[in-house]
Amino acid sequence: MDTMKAAVFEKQGSFVLKDVPVPSLAGDYHVLVEVEAVSICGTDVHITADPPGYIATDGTTLGHELCGTIIEKGKNVTHLDVGDRVVVNPNNYCGVCVYCRKNLPNQCSNIEALGIDYDGAFAKYVCIHSKVAYKIDKTVSPETAACAEPLACAINGLNKVNIKPGDSAVVIGAGPIGLMAAMLLKASGIANLFILETSEYRIDFARKLNLGSVLNPLKDDARKVIYDKTEIGADFVFDMTGSQIAPSIQLVRKGGSVVLFGVNKNSRTEIAQSEITTKEIAVLGTWLANATFPQAIKIIEEKSIDLASLITDVMPLDEIHSGIKKLASGQAIKIIIKP
Amino acid sequence: MDTMKAAVFEKQGSFVLKDVPVPSLAGDYHVLVEVEAVSICGTDVHITADPPGYIATDGTTLGHELCGTIIEKGKNVTHLDVGDRVVVNPNNYCGVCVYCRKNLPNQCSNIEALGIDYDGAFAKYVCIHSKVAYKIDKTVSPETAACAEPLACAINGLNKVNIKPGDSAVVIGAGPIGLMAAMLLKASGIANLFILETSEYRIDFARKLNLGSVLNPLKDDARKVIYDKTEIGADFVFDMTGSQIAPSIQLVRKGGSVVLFGVNKNSRTEIAQSEITTKEIAVLGTWLANATFPQAIKIIEEKSIDLASLITDVMPLDEIHSGIKKLASGQAIKIIIKP
Amino acid sequence: MDTMKAAVFEKQGSFVLKDVPVPSLAGDYHVLVEVEAVSICGTDVHITADPPGYIATDGTTLGHELCGTIIEKGKNVTHLDVGDRVVVNPNNYCGVCVYCRKNLPNQCSNIEALGIDYDGAFAKYVCIHSKVAYKIDKTVSPETAACAEPLACAINGLNKVNIKPGDSAVVIGAGPIGLMAAMLLKASGIANLFILETSEYRIDFARKLNLGSVLNPLKDDARKVIYDKTEIGADFVFDMTGSQIAPSIQLVRKGGSVVLFGVNKNSRTEIAQSEITTKEIAVLGTWLANATFPQAIKIIEEKSIDLASLITDVMPLDEIHSGIKKLASGQAIKIIIKP
Amino acid sequence: MDTMKAAVFEKQGSFVLKDVPVPSLAGDYHVLVEVEAVSICGTDVHITADPPGYIATDGTTLGHELCGTIIEKGKNVTHLDVGDRVVVNPNNYCGVCVYCRKNLPNQCSNIEALGIDYDGAFAKYVCIHSKVAYKIDKTVSPETAACAEPLACAINGLNKVNIKPGDSAVVIGAGPIGLMAAMLLKASGIANLFILETSEYRIDFARKLNLGSVLNPLKDDARKVIYDKTEIGADFVFDMTGSQIAPSIQLVRKGGSVVLFGVNKNSRTEIAQSEITTKEIAVLGTWLANATFPQAIKIIEEKSIDLASLITDVMPLDEIHSGIKKLASGQAIKIIIKP
Ligand SMILES: NC(=O)c1ccc[n+]([C@@H]2O[C@H](COP(=O)([O-])OP(=O)(O)OC[C@H]3O[C@@H](n4cnc5c(N)ncnc54)[C@H](OP(=O)(O)O)[C@@H]3O)[C@@H](O)[C@H]2O)c1
Ligand SMILES: NC(=O)c1ccc[n+]([C@@H]2O[C@H](COP(=O)([O-])OP(=O)(O)OC[C@H]3O[C@@H](n4cnc5c(N)ncnc54)[C@H](OP(=O)(O)O)[C@@H]3O)[C@@H](O)[C@H]2O)c1
Ligand SMILES: NC(=O)c1ccc[n+]([C@@H]2O[C@H](COP(=O)([O-])OP(=O)(O)OC[C@H]3O[C@@H](n4cnc5c(N)ncnc54)[C@H](OP(=O)(O)O)[C@@H]3O)[C@@H](O)[C@H]2O)c1
Ligand SMILES: NC(=O)c1ccc[n+]([C@@H]2O[C@H](COP(=O)([O-])OP(=O)(O)OC[C@H]3O[C@@H](n4cnc5c(N)ncnc54)[C@H](OP(=O)(O)O)[C@@H]3O)[C@@H](O)[C@H]2O)c1
Ligand SMILES: [Zn+2]
Ligand SMILES: [Zn+2]
Ligand SMILES: [Zn+2]
Ligand SMILES: [Zn+2]
Repeated sequence: MDTMKAAVFEKQGSFVLKDVPVPSLAGDYHVLVEVEAVSICGTDVHITADPPGYIATDGTTLGHELCGTIIEKGKNVTHLDVGDRVVVNPNNYCGVCVYCRKNLPNQCSNIEALGIDYDGAFAKYVCIHSKVAYKIDKTVSPETAACAEPLACAINGLNKVNIKPGDSAVVIGAGPIGLMAAMLLKASGIANLFILETSEYRIDFARKLNLGSVLNPLKDDARKVIYDKTEIGADFVFDMTGSQIAPSIQLVRKGGSVVLFGVNKNSRTEIAQSEITTKEIAVLGTWLANATFPQAIKIIEEKSIDLASLITDVMPLDEIHSGIKKLASGQAIKIIIKP
Repeated sequence: MDTMKAAVFEKQGSFVLKDVPVPSLAGDYHVLVEVEAVSICGTDVHITADPPGYIATDGTTLGHELCGTIIEKGKNVTHLDVGDRVVVNPNNYCGVCVYCRKNLPNQCSNIEALGIDYDGAFAKYVCIHSKVAYKIDKTVSPETAACAEPLACAINGLNKVNIKPGDSAVVIGAGPIGLMAAMLLKASGIANLFILETSEYRIDFARKLNLGSVLNPLKDDARKVIYDKTEIGADFVFDMTGSQIAPSIQLVRKGGSVVLFGVNKNSRTEIAQSEITTKEIAVLGTWLANATFPQAIKIIEEKSIDLASLITDVMPLDEIHSGIKKLASGQAIKIIIKP
Repeated sequence: MDTMKAAVFEKQGSFVLKDVPVPSLAGDYHVLVEVEAVSICGTDVHITADPPGYIATDGTTLGHELCGTIIEKGKNVTHLDVGDRVVVNPNNYCGVCVYCRKNLPNQCSNIEALGIDYDGAFAKYVCIHSKVAYKIDKTVSPETAACAEPLACAINGLNKVNIKPGDSAVVIGAGPIGLMAAMLLKASGIANLFILETSEYRIDFARKLNLGSVLNPLKDDARKVIYDKTEIGADFVFDMTGSQIAPSIQLVRKGGSVVLFGVNKNSRTEIAQSEITTKEIAVLGTWLANATFPQAIKIIEEKSIDLASLITDVMPLDEIHSGIKKLASGQAIKIIIKP
Repeated sequence: MDTMKAAVFEKQGSFVLKDVPVPSLAGDYHVLVEVEAVSICGTDVHITADPPGYIATDGTTLGHELCGTIIEKGKNVTHLDVGDRVVVNPNNYCGVCVYCRKNLPNQCSNIEALGIDYDGAFAKYVCIHSKVAYKIDKTVSPETAACAEPLACAINGLNKVNIKPGDSAVVIGAGPIGLMAAMLLKASGIANLFILETSEYRIDFARKLNLGSVLNPLKDDARKVIYDKTEIGADFVFDMTGSQIAPSIQLVRKGGSVVLFGVNKNSRTEIAQSEITTKEIAVLGTWLANATFPQAIKIIEEKSIDLASLITDVMPLDEIHSGIKKLASGQAIKIIIKP
């Protein structure tokens, strides 16, 4: 039996690079993919932390933001061919639960997450249900394509609102997905964009992208800057940290929308709900990708936003431990593994 | 100079019935209205409480939910005639501020509130800007018509969501506007409606209206009842109390909407924002009436909901002190004053 | 091999009752259903007409609006059990084409229609992909449940607009689905509902349902009646005939919506597009059911509308020829076959 | 009495430059504006044509797309000051009719159009109701600011849909507003934009703007080009001609939206309404500006789109006859008059 090296989650706080069997086709609707590039996600950092911020199954190969090439396909797979380059929605849905049947597969009651619940892509090969594999043009670099999944999530957040040229927006948190959201907002016509970030490395990084005014809420009077420019507050605020609902409500204008994208399960905030009511704000949660992969792929293929500029590091699978450490330290944006 | 009896807010905690001059037409766009019926609003209770829950101008005649007949009109008033029965949007807007110009007159920066900022309708006559006076059919009883304003606010809340027959909803708080919201939801096709209320009087009252399942969250396991019936939580939750955002988030299903209607400026709640995010909930503030008076009038004229059943008391102006006391005690729903 | 009687489409203009083999489970995700009730759809009339109004595959068993009980299931079926009563979305979608991936499975490029492209339910047994089979409560009568599919289509039309109590609407065409739409509109709070129909039988039938004002555009001045009552035209017009876009544009108010539901492939209409533009109308196509089966089932289970009152005839499979003739003649509304 | 030169519509087919009295303040809510720049609108061409394409009142000074400075104001004007630079919504609405009260002032039953129903801005001075005058920053050039009104109309069209980066769009008609729409679409993130135009001058002009693929439907197989690139048709089609609803329906994808912006009152088209239905298209009329002036001003101030590049000619009032002739001939885009 052929083996390959894989980054396997062992148990709380530990993951190892070890040889595992090369997967074989799991069924007639599956495809076997040779991984070309796989991005380290914040979730990978949380899974491997101790105590963990996210729970994975012991013994699972990690890695879920991938781009690869199909090398074998099940006999019922008609929409993909061997040789196709694909990206993958790691959250496989059942299609028949109450949420799937309401067009909310991202809320599927039976979701199975690649690289968390079953073997993922920090390895040479990975087996995927073809339903969640999407063809992407070969002119696209695998590194950029590996960003399709977080981009599809960001687009799902954007879909919650109707942005028009000339509008203003605030993005809180300039991590990799925060910056993708900022890029999408800019591409949607946002005239005044404010990016709030506390880490010096990321503030510098964000400034160089030239997307808008980058502020450090620990040092700058962000509220004053935003109100001076917008007079009434921002039309949209995207919280990409998971903890900033209270300042978001302050920074948005009456009648505006706050999109809650970041997730911090431990965050608790005391709010005055009357501000949401009397300011007539919409506070909109968004979760994963819902029918947004085609849009993400289009954006990548058309280079509507400069995703490549977010890739700070490309490294071989052997260096994954240092990659995860680096991302955890906040000294990187997108790190790509080439297995 | 002719005088009339009026309920005048004197100063913190005190209002008196006293003789005041009959108002004359304030301008060419104004109308003079003979008040036929005026409803006591929760705001009237808050204004006259000590300490006050809402601030009015000393010396102002109170009363803002009225129905009356035009007895004189300014020379520039073309859309109304002497003899017309009208209801009134008490929140006069400027038409030219940044919010008025975004079709959000309810968020007008220069709003002037009848019976709060300027003389209101607990009196025989009141002078109104014709812009905020709306003709209503004479077949409608003045008592019911006097409920147009809170109804227009409730409709504005309803407008934030798209309800379909078969949906489920929870209304928290069975005060007068809570019950109006419940009636509107029922009329919109809600198949499973749950009304949560803590006051025994109002629980009994709500039960008799036969709108849905009335629960007391202090005694019943409301969460269990709602989940047993809906399986996944309610499609919509309307918080009509101003303090129940946290249970609202618990009771709504993934992908559902919470409408924050009630206003309690002192309420503070600790929330886990990640629940809004991962459940992908929309939390929607709503404030006053915005282009909803025509709809409210239509509903009253067509008797689409049984507003009359909410009127528990009709009394002369002389009894307004006891009327406000009664409403404050929670032993009434809609109390109508006939000046 | 066991056989059963089935209504089989032979070739243009002819279908026969004949013995065919009882189907066996087609795969691990399929269920075998014993048919309890199946409704004759207008499409069945069109398929069997000569020349045909709709094309089916020669040799296919017809029938696609069914309710039945599962008697056998494939090994991968987890959301349904033997003994469950189910209704079926006859339009099986692939899940992986460009439209399926945009949450538009009703526009699937690889749609396969039960009773048209593959063997349907005018028979004792039918084999169904479990993905399109939905459990429905056993307290519901099979006859009513058999109406789930057209109801799910009508709901999809309703989903295109946001109806509020007090609104007005026109339904053109009082066929079975037109009447379902009228019932849904009424249940959504429509205060003034106008139903336009030309067939005397259906006019009488519609009148007895007491849903609103039933008019015959060949005799009544429908425009006048509608404008007299609404003053500005109706908020919504639903064309349930497939040919009435021009009058729909006349009858809707400025800023209102026309929903095009009916389908008549031969209909051509000359329109003045400037009326859509200057009246600022939304003309909204709607096609089949999209994530609306759960809602349809809820409405049937909760009896939110009185579907049973639309069933004019219940007959055994033996009489299907006369049933289809009767529906074609317009002297019935819903005809149910009990195989 | 002071006089000024003005372009006055005399009667069908004729307008003259003649001396007229300088207007004085019409009321306490009015402002007197010194005109800095006024754009020739297609409507001016239609009014002065013989037979006319649009009806104006005999004896009225034409001109309605202006930028100017307030030199006097009525005593009730609080939101504007003498010295402010303003742009104007030429369609003054009553604020109290059925449509104004539904937040559709653009559909006002008592609309009064500047430069059509009452004296306009092809003159040194014009008197305006302050309600429809909007302050604009002085850093903006008056020529560009004079384009605020058509831009506000185009934004109203854009508001009918929810565009996301990566989407595709077709604009039919590269006149001045067609090009504004194209610029707005580009600024909204449209990845593949197709502009269809038949006039050679405007094809060349559009090509130089570099907004997307410019096609001549008389020569190019536009349908093929668009389907080759998008595979399924465009997400959005904007008809800016008033006559292209039929090709619009062909070019849009299933589930997409057609915005009808152009107005040609004489255009009649035969359509197959079943295509709107089965493709599930939304055909959306849009009319004038509705709460979109603030957005237009923002876009001009922030230079979100390059409006200046649309100005082909700037000329003194004396040359207005040749200006209108030039625009009528299609050999210009935006022509600005400096009175
Ligand atoms: N809703 C969804 O569909 C979805 C999908 C995927 C991921 N997510 C979540 O989305 C979030 C963004 O992802 P990511 O990968 O970009 O995360 P990330 O790398 O953790 O980025 C968050 C950034 O926010 C900064 N930050 C923290 N508190 C701040 C504050 N008060 N003001 C300004 N900046 C602050 C952090 O700085 P420090 O490093 O200095 O703390 C960090 O740079 C994460 O919470 C993730 O879990 C949501
Ligand atoms: N957003 C807007 O446009 C708008 C406009 C007008 C009014 N409002 C607000 O809307 C709210 C409703 O108006 P209303 O006149 O109906 O008010 P109300 O008479 O104060 O009714 C609120 C009801 O909620 C009950 N309640 C309190 N806590 C509860 C809980 N935890 N669970 C269940 N029920 C609870 C109260 O019972 P007890 O009496 O026993 O406390 C009371 O019967 C008010 O807060 C008002 O200020 C909002
Ligand atoms: N969009 C979708 O998702 C979808 C799904 C399923 C079905 N459909 C279509 O929806 C339509 C309604 O279905 P159905 O089963 O109710 O059809 P139906 O039985 O054909 O009913 C149409 C009714 O409209 C009447 N009618 C015809 N012209 C009229 C006019 N000018 N004014 C008033 N009434 C007129 C007809 O009367 P006569 O009998 O006298 O002509 C008939 O009673 C059909 O066209 C069907 O093909 C659409
Ligand atoms: N809805 C609203 O709110 C609103 C507001 C203002 C204006 N409008 C209308 O919006 C439209 C656009 O305004 P505009 O000033 O840009 O008008 P315009 O100058 O008349 O531009 C229309 C352009 O479309 C071209 N055209 C005509 N038929 C065509 C076809 N079949 N395919 C491709 N191109 C074609 C014309 O070319 P030729 O010159 O060769 O014919 C012309 O260049 C006008 O109809 C105007 O009345 C609407
Ligand atoms: Zn599922
Ligand atoms: Zn205002
Ligand atoms: Zn498909
Ligand atoms: Zn008006």
